[in-house]
Amino acid sequence: MGSSIIAWKQLLLNAMESNTHLKHSSYMQLATVGTNGKPSNRTVVFRGFQDNTDNILINTDTRTRKIEELKRCSFAEICWYFTDSWEQFRINGHVDIIDGTNPDPIKLQQREKSWFASSVRSRSQYLGPEPGLPRLNEQTQPEISLDPSIGPVDAFCLLILEPDQVDYLNLKSNQRLTFRSHLSAALTKSWIMERVNL
Amino acid sequence: MGSSIIAWKQLLLNAMESNTHLKHSSYMQLATVGTNGKPSNRTVVFRGFQDNTDNILINTDTRTRKIEELKRCSFAEICWYFTDSWEQFRINGHVDIIDGTNPDPIKLQQREKSWFASSVRSRSQYLGPEPGLPRLNEQTQPEISLDPSIGPVDAFCLLILEPDQVDYLNLKSNQRLTFRSHLSAALTKSWIMERVNL
Repeated sequence: MGSSIIAWKQLLLNAMESNTHLKHSSYMQLATVGTNGKPSNRTVVFRGFQDNTDNILINTDTRTRKIEELKRCSFAEICWYFTDSWEQFRINGHVDIIDGTNPDPIKLQQREKSWFASSVRSRSQYLGPEPGLPRLNEQTQPEISLDPSIGPVDAFCLLILEPDQVDYLNLKSNQRLTFRSHLSAALTKSWIMERVNL
Repeated sequence: MGSSIIAWKQLLLNAMESNTHLKHSSYMQLATVGTNGKPSNRTVVFRGFQDNTDNILINTDTRTRKIEELKRCSFAEICWYFTDSWEQFRINGHVDIIDGTNPDPIKLQQREKSWFASSVRSRSQYLGPEPGLPRLNEQTQPEISLDPSIGPVDAFCLLILEPDQVDYLNLKSNQRLTFRSHLSAALTKSWIMERVNL
């Protein structure tokens, strides 16, 4: 057992690096608790870390079910499996929902930054019809053209997951490590690492 | 909108077929609700369908946290992403836990069948130390040899997920379909399919 400065983040950066040739290496599964109390699980895209933190950025549509779910229970667990290096990260934490109505100007700035960091094609998806609702038009939807200089639209939402527990599994070396965060008396965050049985 | 005889199972069989060259194509993420009410998510291996049904078989260790979680909340959602065909299946349903203490002889038989269907190497993992507990011995664990004729050991547990809702997403054709099960007055199960917005 020992203390470590976000050693799991380094493991994650290494895993991303060694799987970077695979398009799907940035895809991870985000589990939430549904409004009916049942689990809910879907693939989302890793959009990087928030500056100088270990917080994970995810873009989503405010009209998806996960937003309603996260408003009721703000905890989530990411399961991220790297298919080439056989590594799994289970990242549990609290999710901050940042949509256009957020009162915090710094958070709104972060949302704008994430908006412009995504492709114009990705951005134009937020102008489409409401996700999950019955498809009314059987024909293919026309491509929506979006002015690249326009800021985030209403449906664009940034999620920031702040990890407080990480479970790392390596199926090549048969190693499993758990990392738990602790707040000191001075409210600084530190991590305790432990090697556990597979 | 229309009725269909487990059309999602055919889509899933097709996806498995077209991704069969990838070792990880049988890996899926299983979300449960943790005993603390927070979501829990991990990779598990698809072990086939229960005979003549659309129920999904998963092998696990009775000593893992998911068993405790499923005993409190027996619902789960599988998120299964196929990296080559860009298809996602979200399969929500109820999970039946079948360990060695199960009173139903038919279920015990199913558990035994799943035991012998897995490799001797897989089986021997159930003789290892308790998953998730601190690793006491820093040295590599010795390979445990298991008599291949021996039946399921105590730690071996079969999970059977009975789907009642499936969300299918195809990122190549940009199609999304939902399937919901219904019980008729005669208690026969049928599925309603609907095309929905991405």
